[in-house]
Amino acid sequence: MAARGIEVLLLSVGADLPYLTGYEAMPLERLTMLVLPTGGDATLVVPRLEAPRVEEQGDAFALRPWEETEDPVAIVAGLAGAPRRAAIGDTTWSAFLVGLQAAMPGTTFSLASEITRRLRARKEAAEVEWLRRAGAAADRVAARLAATRFSGRRERDVAREIGDMLVEEGHDTAAFAIVASGPNGASPHHEPGERVIESGDAIVADFGGRLGGYHSDTTRNFCVGEPPDGYREAFAVLQRAQDAAVAAIGPGIAAEDVDRAARSVITDAGYGEFFVHRTGHGIGLDVHEHPYIVSGNTAPLEPGNTFSVEPGIYLPGAFGMRIEDIVVVTDDGGERLNHSRRDPAPVE
Amino acid sequence: MAARGIEVLLLSVGADLPYLTGYEAMPLERLTMLVLPTGGDATLVVPRLEAPRVEEQGDAFALRPWEETEDPVAIVAGLAGAPRRAAIGDTTWSAFLVGLQAAMPGTTFSLASEITRRLRARKEAAEVEWLRRAGAAADRVAARLAATRFSGRRERDVAREIGDMLVEEGHDTAAFAIVASGPNGASPHHEPGERVIESGDAIVADFGGRLGGYHSDTTRNFCVGEPPDGYREAFAVLQRAQDAAVAAIGPGIAAEDVDRAARSVITDAGYGEFFVHRTGHGIGLDVHEHPYIVSGNTAPLEPGNTFSVEPGIYLPGAFGMRIEDIVVVTDDGGERLNHSRRDPAPVE
Repeated sequence: MAARGIEVLLLSVGADLPYLTGYEAMPLERLTMLVLPTGGDATLVVPRLEAPRVEEQGDAFALRPWEETEDPVAIVAGLAGAPRRAAIGDTTWSAFLVGLQAAMPGTTFSLASEITRRLRARKEAAEVEWLRRAGAAADRVAARLAATRFSGRRERDVAREIGDMLVEEGHDTAAFAIVASGPNGASPHHEPGERVIESGDAIVADFGGRLGGYHSDTTRNFCVGEPPDGYREAFAVLQRAQDAAVAAIGPGIAAEDVDRAARSVITDAGYGEFFVHRTGHGIGLDVHEHPYIVSGNTAPLEPGNTFSVEPGIYLPGAFGMRIEDIVVVTDDGGERLNHSRRDPAPVE
Repeated sequence: MAARGIEVLLLSVGADLPYLTGYEAMPLERLTMLVLPTGGDATLVVPRLEAPRVEEQGDAFALRPWEETEDPVAIVAGLAGAPRRAAIGDTTWSAFLVGLQAAMPGTTFSLASEITRRLRARKEAAEVEWLRRAGAAADRVAARLAATRFSGRRERDVAREIGDMLVEEGHDTAAFAIVASGPNGASPHHEPGERVIESGDAIVADFGGRLGGYHSDTTRNFCVGEPPDGYREAFAVLQRAQDAAVAAIGPGIAAEDVDRAARSVITDAGYGEFFVHRTGHGIGLDVHEHPYIVSGNTAPLEPGNTFSVEPGIYLPGAFGMRIEDIVVVTDDGGERLNHSRRDPAPVE
């Protein structure tokens, strides 16, 4: 902070706050905000009714509960003083930033991620261990799915069952489950809906949960009966692309080079226009965080970086496919944290 | 917008966007933003991989998918032009607002809720009907809970079961479930945890889900065996307070007068310092929205306003209690949308 001229850090909802303090703000209209001056003591401003949620933090910060009739923005502005530069948490609601800008007219605001992103991206051993455990729990869900009946069921019902499985296999909470069947598979962020899965469908299942605060996120593919024309050929390309990206990982390698490794395989095979997203995203306390594995990100990977490798091929109106593993950068390469079968599992 | 001098409205994550368009942005780092100029056509800027999620909107807005290597903030700034005043969605991430402020240096930003809050607070009949259905589904969960075994189970396991029940009883998704047992009941926003419920515990269960986009939110109380000393006396006060607040509701009544109606009963009975939060919050597409039923909110209630009435009494170290119903303001009073039993249900 001092090196960047940031005099005070202001953190609300999002993962920076639990990363630094262990406490996660509720994503509601009552402001929770840590006020952390470069040279002073930190204060957590918290709604009085949520104060009992905050565990004792020793001398990490003081607690300033605010009453329903107080103005929390004014309290934060008072604690922050009149700094020239402040950094605000990236996911803080604009309602609070607009209020703080009015209350602190002489302050220029930049983003907290400028300070926290590199810290958070280099996972410590204990963090990698949580991600490993979460990945193993997700793998057990994938194995159970390969023995699950899909046909005759709505996508949303399968998605709900995946949510249950994520908890049963050890996650503290389920975070999300995409189940995209048949032509819906061509929508990478499909919302599982009313479509009833039938024979001949290829299915993309992308799911994850939280364990010890850290996320799992894996995508596997399933086929009810014989897959559609062209599916197996495309899948062979996808699998080569995903392997090539994982093989490209290592310390000092630019993030975009991992993207290029996957993309060139898919493009050379003629599917380039159907791989419509980046190759991956960092993962940790957030499902999506730095580093992003995308063209233009020339930052070199570092040991302890953890991110997804998830190329996909999406043929509109026909089908989609994606293979996603979490990988940790080691001293001399990349290690997968997911080990469930990557080829399409035949299901009923 | 014209009356307030707002030249462009910029909406991202949060309920304003689905309220106006039917489309809900994913709460992720890829920007989705509706650019709605006062005198021009609207454009939805959306990540290309999420474009298949957007249903055809006829002539409501044009779609501008952005590629992973494009800068969505620059695209929004280009579409917005150089307005003197723009309104930004209240829950938009600060990362995007800070970027837009840099890209639009001549623009002053205010909050979208100044424009949308009164529109959204006056529910149309169809919206009240969704809230009524959601409330009835939550009531069925409350009835099932009264026949559920609590003792010997962890709070988090009961909370997970409530999540399942919310869906089984007709919600599209479960949104939250607080299960706070014994002394944990004194923490209004308690996170259900490892505590095993035992005989002699009073339990606060606060839960809700989404149905057709609209939320339920109700709180009921349960006792395993004989409640702790002082519980019945306090509960009688709480029930009178909640009834008094509901009876105070009507068009033209100030929101704060509903709060005062509940609070004065509790204060007069000597529990005032233990009622640590406002009496309620508006509800609709958001679980918490305007109008807030809090001291200082002098705005008169209007027919079609829907909000919670949820006084509570919290005795640190001992127990807590809260009764919460959703109420709609009618032409001549208030109508409860929850009808499950309000007195503490005896459970095993």
